[in-house]
Amino acid sequence: MACAEIQHVIQVLAKIPGLGQRSARRAVLHLLKEPQKSLEPLLEALQHMVATIRICTQCGNYDMESPCSICKNPSRDKTQMCIVEDVADLWALERTGAFKGAYHVLGGVLSALDGVGPEDLRIPQLLERIERASVQEVILALNATVDGQITNHYLQTAISQYPHVKITALAHGVPLGGELDYLDEGTLMTALAGRRSL
Amino acid sequence: MACAEIQHVIQVLAKIPGLGQRSARRAVLHLLKEPQKSLEPLLEALQHMVATIRICTQCGNYDMESPCSICKNPSRDKTQMCIVEDVADLWALERTGAFKGAYHVLGGVLSALDGVGPEDLRIPQLLERIERASVQEVILALNATVDGQITNHYLQTAISQYPHVKITALAHGVPLGGELDYLDEGTLMTALAGRRSL
Repeated sequence: MACAEIQHVIQVLAKIPGLGQRSARRAVLHLLKEPQKSLEPLLEALQHMVATIRICTQCGNYDMESPCSICKNPSRDKTQMCIVEDVADLWALERTGAFKGAYHVLGGVLSALDGVGPEDLRIPQLLERIERASVQEVILALNATVDGQITNHYLQTAISQYPHVKITALAHGVPLGGELDYLDEGTLMTALAGRRSL
Repeated sequence: MACAEIQHVIQVLAKIPGLGQRSARRAVLHLLKEPQKSLEPLLEALQHMVATIRICTQCGNYDMESPCSICKNPSRDKTQMCIVEDVADLWALERTGAFKGAYHVLGGVLSALDGVGPEDLRIPQLLERIERASVQEVILALNATVDGQITNHYLQTAISQYPHVKITALAHGVPLGGELDYLDEGTLMTALAGRRSL
């Protein structure tokens, strides 16, 4: 029963994934309670982000410049290219600090159900990059979902036209700290099939 | 591993109760994915809210005007005043549509631990309103927490200096749809003590 202006903010906030009506309502009340401490910094930060953030025309990452700091970084190995669905996945891989190559963000996965075809994703740009640049290895790091695996398969076929490019994929198996008893059969089967000699 | 501008928005968002680092990150990626559809409407809605929302000087509600639409509504019974901790509680009561009186938002509860005394809440304004206006019944609708009950007790003492004012409190008992087996002993004891003849 908030007034229309507040109700509108709640509706807009509630559309953000992870927030529902109730969380949006709590968030708005928090913002209104001490506007100088919460609402105004948020507004400023959002405005600043809108004004400065670009999408990297090469890899699809978000940054203040395009090409982004990863694409521009000369110490990164441009012969390796890791393909991810989303910028969130790129961030997740960057947090590990283990990958020193370049990225390519697809912006989603192929989905017959949602009508997402190769031209809706950044697949043409990917092939163009592979053709143009000195890529030697493409690492498929899509999510282990059905759509992710279908996209993996499609990409594998598309990239195989460049025979000099090695195609690899993230390993599947038991996650660290994972208990076998709680894992699904699919993961266990994959882990068994991919067992390595010690 | 987002760039500084994005990281800053994530930090600011993560301070909102109910949102953590991970949800804030998801929210920002959602906002960046289709800025025209999500980020810009959010910015506009927030700016509009900042520009228009006032705190009602009488009851403490948020509205576009002060006194708020509830305080100004001539069809609301000003002889009844419901005391709530927060605007969220006022909204919750308004959603029921069952209360047709006026409200008074305290803005919190007394808490020795957090150093919240009567002058930190809107208690002086409450007593002034009771003295000035034609209040006949004060309904204590604070949360059923320890601090809420302490505040209830304090208010009861403070308001008892106006002997013409009847003091009531929300009923405690078994919530609708509640199963006895899952209720705590305190609630059950209160429900038993407050049993009514049918």
